[in-house]
Amino acid sequence: MSFETGTQVRFAHVDAAGIVFYPRYFEMLNGAVEDWFDQSLGLSFKAMHMDRHIGVPTVKLEVTFLSPSQLGDDLLIRITPRQIGRTSCTIDIIFTGEGRDRLKAQVVLVCMDVDARRAVPWPDAVREKLMEQLVPQED
Amino acid sequence: MSFETGTQVRFAHVDAAGIVFYPRYFEMLNGAVEDWFDQSLGLSFKAMHMDRHIGVPTVKLEVTFLSPSQLGDDLLIRITPRQIGRTSCTIDIIFTGEGRDRLKAQVVLVCMDVDARRAVPWPDAVREKLMEQLVPQED
Amino acid sequence: MSFETGTQVRFAHVDAAGIVFYPRYFEMLNGAVEDWFDQSLGLSFKAMHMDRHIGVPTVKLEVTFLSPSQLGDDLLIRITPRQIGRTSCTIDIIFTGEGRDRLKAQVVLVCMDVDARRAVPWPDAVREKLMEQLVPQED
Amino acid sequence: MSFETGTQVRFAHVDAAGIVFYPRYFEMLNGAVEDWFDQSLGLSFKAMHMDRHIGVPTVKLEVTFLSPSQLGDDLLIRITPRQIGRTSCTIDIIFTGEGRDRLKAQVVLVCMDVDARRAVPWPDAVREKLMEQLVPQED
Repeated sequence: MSFETGTQVRFAHVDAAGIVFYPRYFEMLNGAVEDWFDQSLGLSFKAMHMDRHIGVPTVKLEVTFLSPSQLGDDLLIRITPRQIGRTSCTIDIIFTGEGRDRLKAQVVLVCMDVDARRAVPWPDAVREKLMEQLVPQED
Repeated sequence: MSFETGTQVRFAHVDAAGIVFYPRYFEMLNGAVEDWFDQSLGLSFKAMHMDRHIGVPTVKLEVTFLSPSQLGDDLLIRITPRQIGRTSCTIDIIFTGEGRDRLKAQVVLVCMDVDARRAVPWPDAVREKLMEQLVPQED
Repeated sequence: MSFETGTQVRFAHVDAAGIVFYPRYFEMLNGAVEDWFDQSLGLSFKAMHMDRHIGVPTVKLEVTFLSPSQLGDDLLIRITPRQIGRTSCTIDIIFTGEGRDRLKAQVVLVCMDVDARRAVPWPDAVREKLMEQLVPQED
Repeated sequence: MSFETGTQVRFAHVDAAGIVFYPRYFEMLNGAVEDWFDQSLGLSFKAMHMDRHIGVPTVKLEVTFLSPSQLGDDLLIRITPRQIGRTSCTIDIIFTGEGRDRLKAQVVLVCMDVDARRAVPWPDAVREKLMEQLVPQED
């Protein structure tokens, strides 16, 4: 099962060529991961960071930019967990808009104790939800 | 009459102290101005920039930051046009959240021919809408 | 006495019209304030935030954008302290490039205890340096 | 032969956990690519975009984040071209600081006609420099 959220290309996202400057895609991507944790995994970034001192830094990222996005484009972002480890999770992400894929990414997130700066196991409730949503990668 | 739109404080907005880094407020503010033009003044930034080669750069800005905003805060942004010139417009902007004002700003926007890099009169349809929404500043 | 530092307009700073998107000016401005604290006031942002848990949030900002800046422009940023309070400081900032003023700003910074979230007096050593550099505003 | 340039972790780069928010790394990376084109390949982004209407969008990106970077860290960025096609170029990028690797990336850039939105061959002078600097990937 995949999680879906939407976003819109804003003036702040585009470059001198009128298309999304790629670092801005990662701000959108991080926002989508925030929505996913908040709306679907039951743990908001606010609760994570401020109450539990947990973070989910990105440790690996593979992205293919498939077609450019312009100012005003409505984009759909789909997140699918592909592999779940004790302290990490691999997710697939696709940005689409008007039937065109814009980018495909595979991201490895790690559950981190922010104070101790080391990986820690996923909280049980998050792990359970992740397992429910898991769609193992086909070969 | 004021225009209202909402936004949420994202991980990308906060600094090492866990509160909004002030340049990020201006990305939110610009996003609110985009919403206003698109939803209320009848001219999207996309149509403006890409079809008509018009921009609305900010030429003056006065801001007072009243209270900090944290990760996850839902903010309401209210825009009120205060003065309308041939090529410019002065607007008041307030960010609030949970009953607390976060910042108050006064911004002067100018209607600019992007190619010629000079101020041009507001398109008639925009000017009309601006006049309808005008709330002259009280002394 | 004023503090001067330089920066360059990067691809990340410009918008669809090919000129600096104004929230990016505030990232540059904040970087110049970091340089000022580090190189001239004897207290780096790193030492401030990480060792002493002090921050210097901006509480007030007045900016006039005088002329646009383009990709590749070398900008000089000049900072002049105008007024020093027990816990605050008012500074004037000018961005220039190729003899043209780009923006003038007046900014009020406050010395803040990051943990307690309240204003605290400037550290003595910083206060001393600020007093040395003070150029009271002419009327 | 590799190109090297330096940067510093700024307040604008770090997140609520006090370490670089990863989209900011890509702003630094893009800045390093700008330095490389300007200082080493003989074609500034300014000349490219404004005079020749050429851009070099990123079409593929693989990154491993090896260790976190903190406010104030001085980082060295090393760029090595690995493969040169008619319209594209694959480069390796390493960020290091105080002897620790922070991230390793492989990036595919494409030479694009900004107006026509399609790939075009590298300008001869750029291609020549790229060939001089090429360090073919070892197996």
